[in-house]
Amino acid sequence: MIPMKRAGFSLDPRLEMDSHPVLCLGLCELRLMDDRRWPWLILVPQRQGAQEIHDLTPLDQAMLAFETNMVAQALKEITACAKINTGALGNSVRQMHIHVVARSEGDPNWPGPVWGFGSRDPYQPEALYEFAQKVKERICSHG
Amino acid sequence: MIPMKRAGFSLDPRLEMDSHPVLCLGLCELRLMDDRRWPWLILVPQRQGAQEIHDLTPLDQAMLAFETNMVAQALKEITACAKINTGALGNSVRQMHIHVVARSEGDPNWPGPVWGFGSRDPYQPEALYEFAQKVKERICSHG
Repeated sequence: MIPMKRAGFSLDPRLEMDSHPVLCLGLCELRLMDDRRWPWLILVPQRQGAQEIHDLTPLDQAMLAFETNMVAQALKEITACAKINTGALGNSVRQMHIHVVARSEGDPNWPGPVWGFGSRDPYQPEALYEFAQKVKERICSHG
Repeated sequence: MIPMKRAGFSLDPRLEMDSHPVLCLGLCELRLMDDRRWPWLILVPQRQGAQEIHDLTPLDQAMLAFETNMVAQALKEITACAKINTGALGNSVRQMHIHVVARSEGDPNWPGPVWGFGSRDPYQPEALYEFAQKVKERICSHG
């Protein structure tokens, strides 16, 4: 896979460890959380030092909303989940990142949040690759 | 306080019970969660039946992002918090609502999420009114 790096931007080491690159969107790097308990994507705006969404430029804020909603729609279509959960927390990892998670009745911690619940359960490498491919294809076919 | 109702829109009874009206923005009703553990605002788009952000019209999606980020900035300025947490979950209450929460180191469940943690701790009525006023003034002075 071609490394996805923008000049002057470096990904937080914890985000790098916990998730895998899927696609470069206009503003964000889209990553798949390596946790098979929930289908879980992360958007990381390629803006060094950005922590709060409202500190981005107005254009970046609009782009981020557009990309987040596009990813949410694709994830809902792929998974046929009951509800998309989106969140921007960043209390531990301050580099701005937006979670987009597919939730279904009876999944771990339903109807509570995914954040802070239990421990990450990594995919088998093939399953991770396969799911990342599915996401990529769905988003590119909409594009 | 003048009742804030849009024709054809009715607020979910649980949102109505747990939070108090602050202000009508262009798309959303802005409400203050009656939980003094965290400064916690909720935006409710006045669109009957809306559940997922990506199902809104493109204009509504843009408006929602704008209003959410404006409210986040105001809340951060008022509270001088460490981090804003935003989230759209809706696993229990399906009517679309966006949480904007001011988080500070050492607050209840820091650095975990506010959702699903413990029980609501209501304000004294005067404190609730005072905080709602502060939010209203900050947002209107930016407007």
